[in-house]
Amino acid sequence: MTGSRPAASFTADDYRTRMERAARAAADAGLAGLLVAPGPDLVWLTGYAPTADTERLTLLVLAPGRDPVLVVPALEAPDAAKAAGAPVLTLRDWTDGKDPYAATAALLDGSGRLGISDNAWAMHLLALQRTLPDTSYASLTEALPMLRAVKDAAELELLTAAGAAADAAFEEIRQVRFGGRRESEVAADLADLLRRFGHSQVDFTIVASGPNGANPHHEVGDRVIEHGDMVVLDFGGLKDGYGSDTSRTVHVGEPTDEERRVHDLVREAQEAGFRAVRPGAACQDVDRAARAVIADAGYGEYFIHRTGHGIGVTTHEPPYMIEGEEQPLVPGMCFSVEPGVYLPGRFGVRIEDIVTVTPDGGRRLNDTTREMVVVE
Amino acid sequence: MTGSRPAASFTADDYRTRMERAARAAADAGLAGLLVAPGPDLVWLTGYAPTADTERLTLLVLAPGRDPVLVVPALEAPDAAKAAGAPVLTLRDWTDGKDPYAATAALLDGSGRLGISDNAWAMHLLALQRTLPDTSYASLTEALPMLRAVKDAAELELLTAAGAAADAAFEEIRQVRFGGRRESEVAADLADLLRRFGHSQVDFTIVASGPNGANPHHEVGDRVIEHGDMVVLDFGGLKDGYGSDTSRTVHVGEPTDEERRVHDLVREAQEAGFRAVRPGAACQDVDRAARAVIADAGYGEYFIHRTGHGIGVTTHEPPYMIEGEEQPLVPGMCFSVEPGVYLPGRFGVRIEDIVTVTPDGGRRLNDTTREMVVVE
Repeated sequence: MTGSRPAASFTADDYRTRMERAARAAADAGLAGLLVAPGPDLVWLTGYAPTADTERLTLLVLAPGRDPVLVVPALEAPDAAKAAGAPVLTLRDWTDGKDPYAATAALLDGSGRLGISDNAWAMHLLALQRTLPDTSYASLTEALPMLRAVKDAAELELLTAAGAAADAAFEEIRQVRFGGRRESEVAADLADLLRRFGHSQVDFTIVASGPNGANPHHEVGDRVIEHGDMVVLDFGGLKDGYGSDTSRTVHVGEPTDEERRVHDLVREAQEAGFRAVRPGAACQDVDRAARAVIADAGYGEYFIHRTGHGIGVTTHEPPYMIEGEEQPLVPGMCFSVEPGVYLPGRFGVRIEDIVTVTPDGGRRLNDTTREMVVVE
Repeated sequence: MTGSRPAASFTADDYRTRMERAARAAADAGLAGLLVAPGPDLVWLTGYAPTADTERLTLLVLAPGRDPVLVVPALEAPDAAKAAGAPVLTLRDWTDGKDPYAATAALLDGSGRLGISDNAWAMHLLALQRTLPDTSYASLTEALPMLRAVKDAAELELLTAAGAAADAAFEEIRQVRFGGRRESEVAADLADLLRRFGHSQVDFTIVASGPNGANPHHEVGDRVIEHGDMVVLDFGGLKDGYGSDTSRTVHVGEPTDEERRVHDLVREAQEAGFRAVRPGAACQDVDRAARAVIADAGYGEYFIHRTGHGIGVTTHEPPYMIEGEEQPLVPGMCFSVEPGVYLPGRFGVRIEDIVTVTPDGGRRLNDTTREMVVVE
């Protein structure tokens, strides 16, 4: 799971507002409550991120019409009490040997449907199902997929700043030497740059050169980058608790005509995806717009992933820009638009910006050139 | 969760043996199969650790009498295919938009009780429960707590080497200056030393000075260590995929008589715990032996945690040395013996070795002095 650290800039009131919004959304969805495990939802709702996610139960219980309660291991209660959202919730601590599931059950009505964090541990869910046999469960992404999707103004500022920092890292990395160095060395440079420009956490620094670029999941390896290589760079992490994620594809020396053509194609697809962003459009419309450009040029079979994913306190979250996702776009949503073409054994190209939905369209949070950049 | 990386030294045959052993243990426990999510169990069974644990299902399906199958997202299949255990299992990849739960269900009988990793995501468990309504589930720790507890010879070698590396780090750290430096600075030294002696991952470097030592959960802070402080050091991580974890308590300058007396008491308790280790003894016997020494001296209320925990591909796992745990010790089990005394507002002492069960007793994997070490 992508780690999340709370942003320093939110107050207890901000967290109270979010918890109230979540409880209302739960009630609207017919849920009797929400059970939130350590991870991005807990960070977003309370500002609390335990140092480790262990077999000891930590769970925020939000039930409509009741005050929020955080069930927490006694040893971790002092840390939890320091969270920015702690003043607006009750801590219910439990010690080794006691039953935290019974403590959780006492905070609920004992029946109805409950939402539970996607990444809550199965062992905790099984124990809750046993303790509360008349309840049923839905994962939070299924029950309330858009809970964190629409960002408020302060969140948008933080995402904008994270995007600008990633752009600054790209402007520096394009100056370094690529040819003759290992992917892992360039990746280390990228990580250093992200940190230098304010990231507290680096989630990924993909440097995929030559044939490695044709595997969209290749992260980084010991391959020595050669003159004539295309190199996919895809990097991001968290700055002040909010995510960055951008991709650019550079070329070591002058590209061939075919390489330039494929790069231009992906750039056009990315532009088409971006232009499809507007309130009321469906997520899948963004995917379709980008995909159509690539398919029309005969490369459809080489675009082998969805067009985008949301971003916020994590670098990958709903909404997803994928065929079949009919969720309408709403101003304040933030997500990637990142089409790619992957030619097995040869090279790949991906271009990615984070885009936010505005009242009349979209705004990019990344703005380095999308033209082919030639590096040394 | 404690991260785990596969050790380089195991072959496909080793993994086949482990998967067969797990499938047999499942059958013996009346389970229709095991569902293993990314994490330490998957590393141990297959050598595979995906770069990130995400919402995309990755699941090893072990059913008695069937060949092992790893359900894996298509984008990650090339990485999975490189795992040391890949040659002895079938990869069943799935692409975005397809239903991985139906693919999983097809590998099972559709009824019976299944074991599932403690840390499998709740969203995956809920989807499996929906897809296979006639199955029931138990967490792996509940169903097969001792699955990874008995180490084979190669694992024991790796744990021995990790313990020796942690000991080497202690021999160096006792030479550095403590007085006048922040806990966080000494902790950074410790982390550097663990890495220098071969650790690829540092899980914790607790430096708890003076009154901070009285909180067994204190990790490290900005407190400046003073002359006259007791300092609890507790550090470990992974070297070649296997864990280290050792604690020593040092003193800045000469200790008082009381400090020396408490330190001697904890040393005797640790020795008593160690001497209780032998095949057939119960886990709780180790806890009782250590605890009795401290209780008899009148400090029982200040020993506020269990005496030990297992170690292997993670730094904390079953078996637990705790009152109520009747699991008999078996040669090859490896765990910590780490009694402590914590005097609120004043100081704490903890002494910890990793111990392995031998045919006729126990053997320590840490062997730095357990006498009080005076530092500068």
